[in-house]
Amino acid sequence: MILTITLNPALDVTYRVDEIVLHGSHRVRSVHERAGGKGVNVSRVLHQLGHATTATGLLGGVIGEQVRADLDAAGLDSAFVSIAGTTRRTVAVADPDDVTIFNEPGPTVTAAERDGLADRLGQLGRRATCVVMSGSLPVGLGPETYAELCAMLKTLPRALPQTQPPSPAGPSPDLTDQSVRSHPALLVDTSGPALIAAAEAGADLLTPNAAELADATGIHDPYAAARHLRELGAGAVVVTRGPDGMLAVTPDGVWSARLDERLVGNPTGAGDAATAALALGQASASRGVDWHQSLREAVAWSAAAVPVAHAGELDLATLDRLRPLVTVTKET
Amino acid sequence: MILTITLNPALDVTYRVDEIVLHGSHRVRSVHERAGGKGVNVSRVLHQLGHATTATGLLGGVIGEQVRADLDAAGLDSAFVSIAGTTRRTVAVADPDDVTIFNEPGPTVTAAERDGLADRLGQLGRRATCVVMSGSLPVGLGPETYAELCAMLKTLPRALPQTQPPSPAGPSPDLTDQSVRSHPALLVDTSGPALIAAAEAGADLLTPNAAELADATGIHDPYAAARHLRELGAGAVVVTRGPDGMLAVTPDGVWSARLDERLVGNPTGAGDAATAALALGQASASRGVDWHQSLREAVAWSAAAVPVAHAGELDLATLDRLRPLVTVTKET
Repeated sequence: MILTITLNPALDVTYRVDEIVLHGSHRVRSVHERAGGKGVNVSRVLHQLGHATTATGLLGGVIGEQVRADLDAAGLDSAFVSIAGTTRRTVAVADPDDVTIFNEPGPTVTAAERDGLADRLGQLGRRATCVVMSGSLPVGLGPETYAELCAMLKTLPRALPQTQPPSPAGPSPDLTDQSVRSHPALLVDTSGPALIAAAEAGADLLTPNAAELADATGIHDPYAAARHLRELGAGAVVVTRGPDGMLAVTPDGVWSARLDERLVGNPTGAGDAATAALALGQASASRGVDWHQSLREAVAWSAAAVPVAHAGELDLATLDRLRPLVTVTKET
Repeated sequence: MILTITLNPALDVTYRVDEIVLHGSHRVRSVHERAGGKGVNVSRVLHQLGHATTATGLLGGVIGEQVRADLDAAGLDSAFVSIAGTTRRTVAVADPDDVTIFNEPGPTVTAAERDGLADRLGQLGRRATCVVMSGSLPVGLGPETYAELCAMLKTLPRALPQTQPPSPAGPSPDLTDQSVRSHPALLVDTSGPALIAAAEAGADLLTPNAAELADATGIHDPYAAARHLRELGAGAVVVTRGPDGMLAVTPDGVWSARLDERLVGNPTGAGDAATAALALGQASASRGVDWHQSLREAVAWSAAAVPVAHAGELDLATLDRLRPLVTVTKET
């Protein structure tokens, strides 16, 4: 089971209007609401492709109940911890040309609620093959949060070996040898000081985009910046570069992956789709990650998210068509 | 008890932002939520000034629950009928200069739900001295709705005479003679074809603003337009004209009322405050309305709503200060 952690989930609300006028009064033509947040989107994609996943994190108030109900309606397994504050909404006002977005600040999380989350992760983490920590942190949780969760998850006693999810394509690696990694693979998708702290805590995989990587490390060259995160303690770093594909600095060398076709659509969920594929690559790896395959899947899943209007869903025909077109190169 | 009917209430959400940028992404600094809708605001003002009031109408879904909870928290007596659809939100994005508003379309009301509302009004209406029908109609309820509710309320058997709320100032009129009006006073605050239909149904008082009156009747002169509504069947018409005060065409002649002081603030709730005062004037009148006093109160309440940020609340110091400054003139 792949466990995703979303500490600051949202109810994503989309308003369609005929035209947007600054300081005007608008008749909203349609209202669409959907549970959102980066970890939630990762779980949605994994669930769509038939992989076992559980979404956890923090939810509160009437909006939290709406998020929970939407996840239930989607058939997604979730185990969120309840908090006193109210989960945030994002409101995207879509006119025929573009989108104007309003992000609510979200709840303030207390120390007791944070401890409740750690307890929940202590239970769920033992059954997970990979734990994905994704997205921004709510008020009350500092940039050390993901690092501390990584440290905690590394010390968990493992549950009995389980049937692992199948590799996304091709034969599964040998699953009988659990000796290489004694804890669930820890994947952290974040930015800023939280990214540095996660590297120092020894996260197995970090997945910043190129701008986040440069911003957090102060190093402009993505290869050098990724190597720096590995020196700090990270197992591997995959840098997503939008339509320019990905590069990976790993214990098995440096890789790049790309797709020469440009897709038109909504790139919002592409990063989360890539994270989902990379999490699956980590979860399937008992004696090291098959980077060639993992990066191929990550680029294909990412591209297959673009034709779909909402984050957290892939266009399966696009996925099948693009998978063989991805070029993966081992650079060093 | 003054009964207010809000068929299309809302959860009014206010977002504060530092600056609004078309097609930008905004960090919302604060979120304020409050039960809204014109009838709800009328009840809020009456409740604030110590007058017995019950708010009814239609509420549904998770937003409906939020509205109910907010009314309960305010100590307001409410008896809304539950519907399957979800109550709408209005989102007002306030930047330092002005406000940009997004109004959700709201639920579609079924014929069965409409019948449920009529049943509820049959119970509540018997105990009411005045029934206020206020605001827009949800999808599924045609412009004849208020007229049909008026017709139904006129045929209700009256409950035993009750202690009526005190007149807003000065001695109460004689309350022992209930002979003049055999039904609760019917006040309709609406626009368009619904306004015409309410006049034809014999509503006791209509309270359009000048633009609504001209729009519904096609008659530009407000005196002539108000007389036209009386000819159609309305008991009286009070036309609100913002800072220019009010005029009233009544069975007791034509009146005007105004205040020579200009107030700075938020005029959103001023109309509902005027409606609340006029409803009280109707409710207190056993043998005809004291128009001089009723119009003085309506202008003063309306002005006292302007200094308050939210609709449904008066600034009591402003009310006391302005009440003696209102000029009421009997024109004919």
